[in-house]
Amino acid sequence: MKHIEINGVLTVDQLIQQFQGAGSFGAGRLARACTVYEKMLRDKECTVFLALSGAVIPAGLRSIVINLIRSKLVDVIVSTGASIVHDAIEAINGHHYKGSWIADDDELFRYHIFRIYDVFVPEEDYVRLDYKFSEMYCRIAEEKKGESLSSNEFAWELGKRLKNSNSILRAAYEEEVPIFIPALRDSEFGYVHLLHSSQRNSKDSLKVDAFKDVSTICNIFKKSPKNGMIVIGGGVPRNTVQSAAIASSKGIDYAIVITMDRPEAGGLSGSTLKESVSWGKVKSEADKTMVIGDALVIFPIIVASVIERLGKGFTRKAHLKNAKMKV
Amino acid sequence: MKHIEINGVLTVDQLIQQFQGAGSFGAGRLARACTVYEKMLRDKECTVFLALSGAVIPAGLRSIVINLIRSKLVDVIVSTGASIVHDAIEAINGHHYKGSWIADDDELFRYHIFRIYDVFVPEEDYVRLDYKFSEMYCRIAEEKKGESLSSNEFAWELGKRLKNSNSILRAAYEEEVPIFIPALRDSEFGYVHLLHSSQRNSKDSLKVDAFKDVSTICNIFKKSPKNGMIVIGGGVPRNTVQSAAIASSKGIDYAIVITMDRPEAGGLSGSTLKESVSWGKVKSEADKTMVIGDALVIFPIIVASVIERLGKGFTRKAHLKNAKMKV
Amino acid sequence: MKHIEINGVLTVDQLIQQFQGAGSFGAGRLARACTVYEKMLRDKECTVFLALSGAVIPAGLRSIVINLIRSKLVDVIVSTGASIVHDAIEAINGHHYKGSWIADDDELFRYHIFRIYDVFVPEEDYVRLDYKFSEMYCRIAEEKKGESLSSNEFAWELGKRLKNSNSILRAAYEEEVPIFIPALRDSEFGYVHLLHSSQRNSKDSLKVDAFKDVSTICNIFKKSPKNGMIVIGGGVPRNTVQSAAIASSKGIDYAIVITMDRPEAGGLSGSTLKESVSWGKVKSEADKTMVIGDALVIFPIIVASVIERLGKGFTRKAHLKNAKMKV
Amino acid sequence: MKHIEINGVLTVDQLIQQFQGAGSFGAGRLARACTVYEKMLRDKECTVFLALSGAVIPAGLRSIVINLIRSKLVDVIVSTGASIVHDAIEAINGHHYKGSWIADDDELFRYHIFRIYDVFVPEEDYVRLDYKFSEMYCRIAEEKKGESLSSNEFAWELGKRLKNSNSILRAAYEEEVPIFIPALRDSEFGYVHLLHSSQRNSKDSLKVDAFKDVSTICNIFKKSPKNGMIVIGGGVPRNTVQSAAIASSKGIDYAIVITMDRPEAGGLSGSTLKESVSWGKVKSEADKTMVIGDALVIFPIIVASVIERLGKGFTRKAHLKNAKMKV
Repeated sequence: MKHIEINGVLTVDQLIQQFQGAGSFGAGRLARACTVYEKMLRDKECTVFLALSGAVIPAGLRSIVINLIRSKLVDVIVSTGASIVHDAIEAINGHHYKGSWIADDDELFRYHIFRIYDVFVPEEDYVRLDYKFSEMYCRIAEEKKGESLSSNEFAWELGKRLKNSNSILRAAYEEEVPIFIPALRDSEFGYVHLLHSSQRNSKDSLKVDAFKDVSTICNIFKKSPKNGMIVIGGGVPRNTVQSAAIASSKGIDYAIVITMDRPEAGGLSGSTLKESVSWGKVKSEADKTMVIGDALVIFPIIVASVIERLGKGFTRKAHLKNAKMKV
Repeated sequence: MKHIEINGVLTVDQLIQQFQGAGSFGAGRLARACTVYEKMLRDKECTVFLALSGAVIPAGLRSIVINLIRSKLVDVIVSTGASIVHDAIEAINGHHYKGSWIADDDELFRYHIFRIYDVFVPEEDYVRLDYKFSEMYCRIAEEKKGESLSSNEFAWELGKRLKNSNSILRAAYEEEVPIFIPALRDSEFGYVHLLHSSQRNSKDSLKVDAFKDVSTICNIFKKSPKNGMIVIGGGVPRNTVQSAAIASSKGIDYAIVITMDRPEAGGLSGSTLKESVSWGKVKSEADKTMVIGDALVIFPIIVASVIERLGKGFTRKAHLKNAKMKV
Repeated sequence: MKHIEINGVLTVDQLIQQFQGAGSFGAGRLARACTVYEKMLRDKECTVFLALSGAVIPAGLRSIVINLIRSKLVDVIVSTGASIVHDAIEAINGHHYKGSWIADDDELFRYHIFRIYDVFVPEEDYVRLDYKFSEMYCRIAEEKKGESLSSNEFAWELGKRLKNSNSILRAAYEEEVPIFIPALRDSEFGYVHLLHSSQRNSKDSLKVDAFKDVSTICNIFKKSPKNGMIVIGGGVPRNTVQSAAIASSKGIDYAIVITMDRPEAGGLSGSTLKESVSWGKVKSEADKTMVIGDALVIFPIIVASVIERLGKGFTRKAHLKNAKMKV
Repeated sequence: MKHIEINGVLTVDQLIQQFQGAGSFGAGRLARACTVYEKMLRDKECTVFLALSGAVIPAGLRSIVINLIRSKLVDVIVSTGASIVHDAIEAINGHHYKGSWIADDDELFRYHIFRIYDVFVPEEDYVRLDYKFSEMYCRIAEEKKGESLSSNEFAWELGKRLKNSNSILRAAYEEEVPIFIPALRDSEFGYVHLLHSSQRNSKDSLKVDAFKDVSTICNIFKKSPKNGMIVIGGGVPRNTVQSAAIASSKGIDYAIVITMDRPEAGGLSGSTLKESVSWGKVKSEADKTMVIGDALVIFPIIVASVIERLGKGFTRKAHLKNAKMKV
């Protein structure tokens, strides 16, 4: 074991190399995560799934995710509804503000400011979203004429209609990166639907099918020779990716989980990747690691380290291009 | 502050009374949680929502939830798909077994045994579920003739077809307790649908609408003079209940959250109930508390303490009866 | 696996029996902890060490610990200085008050009220302690005439001089239960010594030897056929007990650890009992378990359950009587 | 709020600047910690205390701490015994090895290999320490002729006798950085004393006074116009620094705590810095932050960021030089 040495200015990856030399505790896990992500990207057969939960998008990861999509460093996104809602809020010029966790929540309530730990969002940004998006729902419904969408088709329909190219929804649409939102209704997108369907008779309202995206994500797994997973948080997005692995009889080949959750209480979010092996969700021989920490700190470090390793010349083909539209 | 005294045999509630006297740390929070649940139940205007996440159902809480439904001590359930899947597995004579968290997961994989921390489930129980339920899906689809169900209608359709009265699905159906499953596809129910729809042309397959349950849960909130929430874990079920509170402009009046998650990483599961006040999800003056602990320990203690307080004579009217079928 | 059933009033141990039937997650660990403590007490060859850290004494566990000493259900205490300081504060009529964790700490500072999460202690109680105890130090110093005490001798000297029989220090002195305080100076006892030694020339001031208690605790381990450990929290008290096990070449036979700490960050407090086996601190075949939870909730449950199991007739001989005075 | 941008190779501090722009969750706290440490170092009136607990020294932080001492970027160290023991083991050519947390601890026990999560230490390195250091104790005892040492004098006596300049003990001795070890006996240093005193009559054995370092650390606080604290972990080292602040009536001016502990269970290690304000341990207006994370990841990032900010030209005077020897 080599102790970490800091004797002057270090790039992020130089620090990670020091962590790898030590190889212990969280530093060892973090260094390993960088290696696993690098391997996923250099493996030409691997499709990279990014599972997003928690409130990291409004808190600072939005641009990183957009860049990963644009640079083709992720192939598929599986997300909570809320993460995409927060992207959408900024896409239509809403904002998230630096706040404080020691806040008078009664006062915030009176001033119509919503708190996400130390991030503030004005209610009016949600209201603008409601109106703009309920209109968008109408236009999609008209175009689809009663056809039910899957959650990923829904996401692209939104992306198609957003003009702001600096958004996850738009970038994913343009780069043909599927966004699965398995619990779509559990977010402002659900309330927008309520608003939308109150304005028209229910027959004409936008339809999203609860099950339709299952076969799509399973087909991606099946067609892809190898599959890699990066989980931020856990919850439904982690479970959806892992379940697609079983359902398509393809264990995951590379896996990174970044979480603060612990295994002892039994929930999936904190479950170890070793446990996932018993199910066949993750292969026994997979390159895998779990980093215990705040994803808003850990994930940018991994991305910065890997981008440094790949260098400017590196390019990666859009993995699902051609293939994916027909899945 | 009075120190906890244990001088002989204590009932669960007698111990909780000691915790209340001390009033500190987790003991204070747990004692308060018992009081909040008791108040919810004695308040004749209050509808009680139970939000279920994590793996507590296969690990031991299944009977407690069934009893709460049968005794009319919960009015609405909001659950992950997996929790209901585990109920269904036992309803058709599958089993969960005591295992160990120090297990050879490669070996478990070879023997087709799935591990949930220290609970084991044989794969064959899932396989039986797949076949029995895909058949059930067919029968529901035939009956519904193309109509799309909401997640709660879907849950009752399953309950109606299960014979085993000792199950959450059946009990909820019989007692007319709605079960919302906002991320329905993120569970074996999603895979079952894949199987089911592979057997018939997609036009005839069972349809569940992703948004249809939104108005139903919002209407329950609106019609109910007061609303109480008990959260086990967090995730989508907690968010769904809290979002319904906003969407119906009714802040929650009583709230208990049992979780191991922490607020600092920003995710909803660990967010404080004080933070929820800024959104209007929970009323500022609500009776509320968050218990940091393993729900498999904490929730049975709360239930035992409250049942002891209520006594044998206590009865509670099924809160949504008559009202709910039309929501 | 049997699901937990609650069908009426349950005693604490009846609930624990239900947890044992389920055997999963935290409920399984808690049930096991009760069994391990029961075994320790029924095993006539076992010396029971209680390691105390955190702020559980001021928060509500003080009476329980006093009762355990009086009932001879613990044989040795290893504690932080602070836990014993809080006992001493109450022994001279100071108080701890129910407070709130949402407090204005600037205001508390101005009003000379110290906050321990949601417990308040007035500064004046510390001041009274300072004066009373610095006097006591003088009297002990005079009696000892330059002899250096060990931390456990120091604790008994205090206990001898306290009149309040309702205190840990007094009870331990009367029942001849050694109290080891390995980091004695790291508490108000350190400041009291500063005050005391400022009043007299340093030659005459009370001397405590930093190492003198090492051989004493090791001798207890050596002489005792079997050794059991109950850890609340972790830190120095857990390490001291475990180190004594190695130093005396006697692995621990029964072990319970109650903590919120996790193993991944590498610290001893969160380290697993399995890890302790590699060192020889805990025997491989030891009856052992780690309960992840708030000790103010978990420990009283264990004590209540075990007292119920033992019944009224149970008596246990003071284990170290005769032996210990000469160690 | 500005989202984190990663568009190419970033130095560690460039990434931290991005975190500062976002300012949320752990990223905001980490960025703030870098600023607070930078301020401590640029403030010519500030004495910097580093409180060390957990197993970070054997796991990889040893060289960083040595460099901080050599570069005069810390002025005082307060440590657990174990951290210094691990430094000493390497100083006499012992080693820590990369291991695995999934290890067969029975086998490790048979092969005399001690496990610290995923770090392995051979027992023989401890045995060598025992013999070398018990000899050293003899020589110190002979030189001191019955005089009792304080823990910090003891640490320097060891440093004086170690030849390996690449060690914390030696560097601290040479740079006149005091090392306080408040729970000295709670480590292999305690067992070494047992060995040492078994070889000679107790009158001639090395004496360390349990209280003697209290006035020394308090005097440093008093003489220093300002005081800054960096805590790794918590436990006795954090408490010792904070208690010295009260005892010397000087609240801490700058504070960083890196921990995985949470406040809700009431222990000091997880207590907020806001709580510390109520005691007067930390000033209300202090620059302060708590970073929730694995110190082996977080602390090197802070150090790398601050070293980058300070630049090559930066020098800092040994703060306690002249002053400290007489304290």
